[in-house]
Amino acid sequence: MSVQVSLERMSEKVAAFSKFGALEGGGITRLSLTEPALEARAELKRRCEALGMEVASDDIGNIYATVQGTEDLPRFVMGSHLDSVRSGGNYDGIYGVLSSLEAVETIITEGIPHRHPLTVMVWTNEEGARFEPAMMSSGIVLGKFAKEKMLAVTETGGTVTFGEALAASGWAGDEKNRLNKKDYCAYFEPHIEQGPVLEEEGLEIGVVEGVVGMVNYDIILEGVSSHAGTTPQRYRKDALRAASQVILDLWGKLGALAGDLVFTTGEIHVRPNIHTVVPNYVKFSLDARHRDMAVLAQVVDVIKGLPQEVYGCKLSYEEHWGRNTIEFDAGLLGFVEEATQECGYSYKRMYSGAGHDAQYVSEMLPSVMIFIPSRGGLSHTVVEYSTPEQCAHGANVLLGAVLRADAAL
Amino acid sequence: MSVQVSLERMSEKVAAFSKFGALEGGGITRLSLTEPALEARAELKRRCEALGMEVASDDIGNIYATVQGTEDLPRFVMGSHLDSVRSGGNYDGIYGVLSSLEAVETIITEGIPHRHPLTVMVWTNEEGARFEPAMMSSGIVLGKFAKEKMLAVTETGGTVTFGEALAASGWAGDEKNRLNKKDYCAYFEPHIEQGPVLEEEGLEIGVVEGVVGMVNYDIILEGVSSHAGTTPQRYRKDALRAASQVILDLWGKLGALAGDLVFTTGEIHVRPNIHTVVPNYVKFSLDARHRDMAVLAQVVDVIKGLPQEVYGCKLSYEEHWGRNTIEFDAGLLGFVEEATQECGYSYKRMYSGAGHDAQYVSEMLPSVMIFIPSRGGLSHTVVEYSTPEQCAHGANVLLGAVLRADAAL
Repeated sequence: MSVQVSLERMSEKVAAFSKFGALEGGGITRLSLTEPALEARAELKRRCEALGMEVASDDIGNIYATVQGTEDLPRFVMGSHLDSVRSGGNYDGIYGVLSSLEAVETIITEGIPHRHPLTVMVWTNEEGARFEPAMMSSGIVLGKFAKEKMLAVTETGGTVTFGEALAASGWAGDEKNRLNKKDYCAYFEPHIEQGPVLEEEGLEIGVVEGVVGMVNYDIILEGVSSHAGTTPQRYRKDALRAASQVILDLWGKLGALAGDLVFTTGEIHVRPNIHTVVPNYVKFSLDARHRDMAVLAQVVDVIKGLPQEVYGCKLSYEEHWGRNTIEFDAGLLGFVEEATQECGYSYKRMYSGAGHDAQYVSEMLPSVMIFIPSRGGLSHTVVEYSTPEQCAHGANVLLGAVLRADAAL
Repeated sequence: MSVQVSLERMSEKVAAFSKFGALEGGGITRLSLTEPALEARAELKRRCEALGMEVASDDIGNIYATVQGTEDLPRFVMGSHLDSVRSGGNYDGIYGVLSSLEAVETIITEGIPHRHPLTVMVWTNEEGARFEPAMMSSGIVLGKFAKEKMLAVTETGGTVTFGEALAASGWAGDEKNRLNKKDYCAYFEPHIEQGPVLEEEGLEIGVVEGVVGMVNYDIILEGVSSHAGTTPQRYRKDALRAASQVILDLWGKLGALAGDLVFTTGEIHVRPNIHTVVPNYVKFSLDARHRDMAVLAQVVDVIKGLPQEVYGCKLSYEEHWGRNTIEFDAGLLGFVEEATQECGYSYKRMYSGAGHDAQYVSEMLPSVMIFIPSRGGLSHTVVEYSTPEQCAHGANVLLGAVLRADAAL
């Protein structure tokens, strides 16, 4: 087996960064550009500089810590984000940064020669928990969102704008430092799976082929509100009864499509939502994801084929945003898979159901992701957990893939 | 046909009182003891005194406007409330007051002899829309609620207590004026049906035999929250899917009990209620009402027989308050029915599904209610409506029933 990262050092990194925004009883709240996030940034900078890396930031606070290579080649970049959701955990995002740092630290401290410069990266405000939307900075860099519009976004539940928080952070650097096609040639993003598949199947690594496409709809039932005590059942047009029927029908019909289609009715709004009044209005969300866009087209057909009336209630739907399936780079995927095999880890090729900065980056640079298992499939919660060994496995795969790419590209 | 109320005068009363708290576009907001409610009280007092009635109030602001009879007998009392819900209509509550006033005005202006004193009554804060709970004042008079505790209740969405509002209103009178068993011997409450039955069956009057009993439960489903994009359907424990199934099962099972059982799942709370997260917690209300307590016992059996697990989610339930069925006075019911027949109005004997002050009063005095149709079965809405003729019909039935009772009791 080739060179390995240090399990102890990897674990120390996770433990050290778990302090920034730590909550009593475990987990963290480390919203983008808040004090705990700035402490984590400062600690990362200190560690990178101690390794002799040069730390820069671009105009939206994305961090690039670089160690030079032996040749004048474009850089490899690897990382993720260090912000969390409210009451989040110690792995989602930060693991990608720390495993990248551990891989580079191994290369530096072991004196492993590398032709390409290697950059550890942090994306600002990936979660969107403080400033909507999620993946804001990679979206800006890839031209998905207008920077000026994003700078004007006010924090959820507060008064500070993203622009104000950025200016106050001291991390607003030069626009020319942004990730670009000329100076970089490959992007690697390790991440926790955020789902149960690896754990359930007893696998150590997910070699991530892409990010699945998705569709988002709201489904609306409109009935008539009436008094709970005085309206015989036969006269009722109960929108919650109708919505319940539609939710179960969707489970039946969508469940009969591709077996690995995922769909979720996660959000529901009921009016007037008073226990003595028959609901006259229900709106619920439907989120469906699959790598095969033809399957998503079938989902849309199911939605369009829903009856116009359910238990006397009018059914309508609204389409929201969707995304096409993103395919990661076949060459990088090969390096990741070979590195996984060389380490002797069990693995599967799989798609990410969640969105990641890598999906935007993949439009600019060859990109790939590496998943490690999430205990119970949980993320965005204080109990999210991956074992020290799992964390080290992901870093080893990254290290191996980077060195293979370095030799080949 | 015996003496009749005046259709014009009845209509004028409804129109005149519709101004107090009027909303642009129709309907009213006349929360208890707010300025519009005090204006309505002042107008009622003015009208009663103009008819030679003596107006008094008790210590919680209930109004008693009395015209003496020819003998030293206990009083008949008739009325309802003049407060409304937010964005309510011009009939729920106030119709009972105004039809009572119209019946008494007819007796006075036509010089109809009557042995018993006749009292038109207004209950303070029936709706509970400003100060919870509903039927607060009849509840205090009947010993359901402690007065001191009620005085301390703070208005919904504000800072004023019921006690402060009462003191500021000028309507806090003498406790000895409260409705009591010695000075009063019969209670009549006209009201809109608040349901669709009379309209659907083409009937003019509901002779109300009582108020149906009810049970209230919360039903809780506890699953596991997980990411919408990364959790295969087979691993999900989706509390909203489970709740949808239980709601439909309840419709099936409760719908197979007595045909006139009414049940409602009107309120639902979902956590985390985010479109990208599988819900891990759903709580919904179940309100079931029937006059036969044995049927309500069957409802409870259905709830207790629900499975403990639904789609992997744990099911539990919490019992909240209930009430036994209230039976109104058979003698007064007979007078109401005879008066209805004498007027030649189509009618049915029926139970009230909604709660009314009459249900508390019936524990102290012989009581009865008279219903007129509600257009579309609607109440607690700006569009609630009964025709002038329907309003006059109810007042005629009240008039006839009061005169029959006056002769007989």
